[in-house]
Amino acid sequence: MSLTVVGSVAFDALETPFGKREKLLGGAGTHFALSSSFFTDVRVIGVVGNDFTENEWAVFKRHNINTDDIEVVADGKTFFWRGRYDYDLNTAHTLETQLNVFETFQPKPSEESKNSRLLFLANILPMLQKEVREQCPKAEFVAMDTMNFWIDSMKDAVIETVKVVDCVIINDAEARQLADEPNIHKAAKKIMSWGPKALVIKRGEYGAALFTKDEYFAVPAYPLESVFDPTGAGDTFAGGFMGYLASQAEITNDTLRRAMIYGSVMASFNVEEFGTERVDRLTHDEINERFRAYKRMTHFEEIPFERANSAT
Amino acid sequence: MSLTVVGSVAFDALETPFGKREKLLGGAGTHFALSSSFFTDVRVIGVVGNDFTENEWAVFKRHNINTDDIEVVADGKTFFWRGRYDYDLNTAHTLETQLNVFETFQPKPSEESKNSRLLFLANILPMLQKEVREQCPKAEFVAMDTMNFWIDSMKDAVIETVKVVDCVIINDAEARQLADEPNIHKAAKKIMSWGPKALVIKRGEYGAALFTKDEYFAVPAYPLESVFDPTGAGDTFAGGFMGYLASQAEITNDTLRRAMIYGSVMASFNVEEFGTERVDRLTHDEINERFRAYKRMTHFEEIPFERANSAT
Repeated sequence: MSLTVVGSVAFDALETPFGKREKLLGGAGTHFALSSSFFTDVRVIGVVGNDFTENEWAVFKRHNINTDDIEVVADGKTFFWRGRYDYDLNTAHTLETQLNVFETFQPKPSEESKNSRLLFLANILPMLQKEVREQCPKAEFVAMDTMNFWIDSMKDAVIETVKVVDCVIINDAEARQLADEPNIHKAAKKIMSWGPKALVIKRGEYGAALFTKDEYFAVPAYPLESVFDPTGAGDTFAGGFMGYLASQAEITNDTLRRAMIYGSVMASFNVEEFGTERVDRLTHDEINERFRAYKRMTHFEEIPFERANSAT
Repeated sequence: MSLTVVGSVAFDALETPFGKREKLLGGAGTHFALSSSFFTDVRVIGVVGNDFTENEWAVFKRHNINTDDIEVVADGKTFFWRGRYDYDLNTAHTLETQLNVFETFQPKPSEESKNSRLLFLANILPMLQKEVREQCPKAEFVAMDTMNFWIDSMKDAVIETVKVVDCVIINDAEARQLADEPNIHKAAKKIMSWGPKALVIKRGEYGAALFTKDEYFAVPAYPLESVFDPTGAGDTFAGGFMGYLASQAEITNDTLRRAMIYGSVMASFNVEEFGTERVDRLTHDEINERFRAYKRMTHFEEIPFERANSAT
């Protein structure tokens, strides 16, 4: 197997200005796996309860996502999150969180998962992320996400995990908070000084940026006139990013750049409808069409300015 | 003459976390003219008081900026602004504004200004912007700026000016406010429905975006580890943008895209030091070097994804 993700598999309940849903398939592991499945073979390490039905498993099956490492707790309930978005769709307001089976989640990677070439540590307890990383020593390229909650409550543990990964994928507020530095370029330098050779900063409606040792690469967000449900956009980005990298024989600055575009493309589809609905029925043609649109919206001819009669 | 700007010429007093200055040459007209002077011949329509000294005039002279249309009011004082930036350099806190001679400013374009091919209406009273535009009927390409203050107090007058220009250059909060629409892409459509064929949205540390009838183009901000003084960044952007366009025989989607890059390049230099200090001693080599850096930080190879053994 080429890509493994450890992360939540969940049910979400959502209210947005555009509608309401009581039970959507969600969770970081789900959004990541679904997105990456368009590019590579993917396995999920996670846990669900007895309320997880054939309808949910069918989404994974449809996309050939390997679920052997998703533990089913017979007397437990699946992680549940209820949230609300107002017209400013940038901020999720949490109304209710039931950790349920996720509370005592102990990831148990199978031999197949341990042999994965790429590994993504979605947003879970930083100590668990580190454990999983150490259980998969053969992984060539390991990326992690995290969130403000862990940075607030156990920053040292987050940094210990950062030290053992190749790439950190977080949003700009988290990067500033993690580095304790308001300037994002200084913050990036500090985070990379702890070990990672790549840092991806997600900027919501402003796109995303990639920092590597020698290069800086920035991509805008895809222009959308309506964002329906931003839940899972970050994990869908990470899924497109890591999925594309897994499909390539070598991870270079060039493949990382294209991975940034594919991540942005996948995230742009994710937010167009509720939950996993849009990505679930996506096609490769649609993905490639939006990839080409990215080229059009960022391309310019490199013609240096020459002034015939210079005033200065 | 190829480019004329109408706008403020001012003295600024500034406090930032990096230092303090009591008297800096400033004003939208100044920053715009200085920036555009690297690309084309430029004239300023403005007004100053008797406190404007040889030191200030020398900056204009050094860059061959034509100041014939800057009126000197013998018994008046130059527009003065005192502001403060905290560590969040995105927001200017106004401490003091003395309009002085600017309060009764009546732009008086000379015949030469009226014959300008391009015209920039910097942020002044919208009715004055419209008057100047109408006094320059031969201008091929007219752009305008505005600010939240005018949108709050006289939105209709702002819209009347928008209707008679070819291009609007504003920041994203102003665009949302002007269109009364939170989604920036819908806001852009609405503003362009009033007449302009181009709309530039300035996004501070997130770069800038260009909307034309058929295209969307987005550029990141140049990565800077320290921003010293953001005053005038928007006008410096507009100066690079309009200055570059004025240097080109035709204004096309391609030249507009490069103009976006030159605008971003000039703004990135402006914020590196206080007031006009950095741009004042800029060279064409430095400008072109940063233009090339823009290519490196946005370029990716267009290779559509093909999956040998598609799972979907």
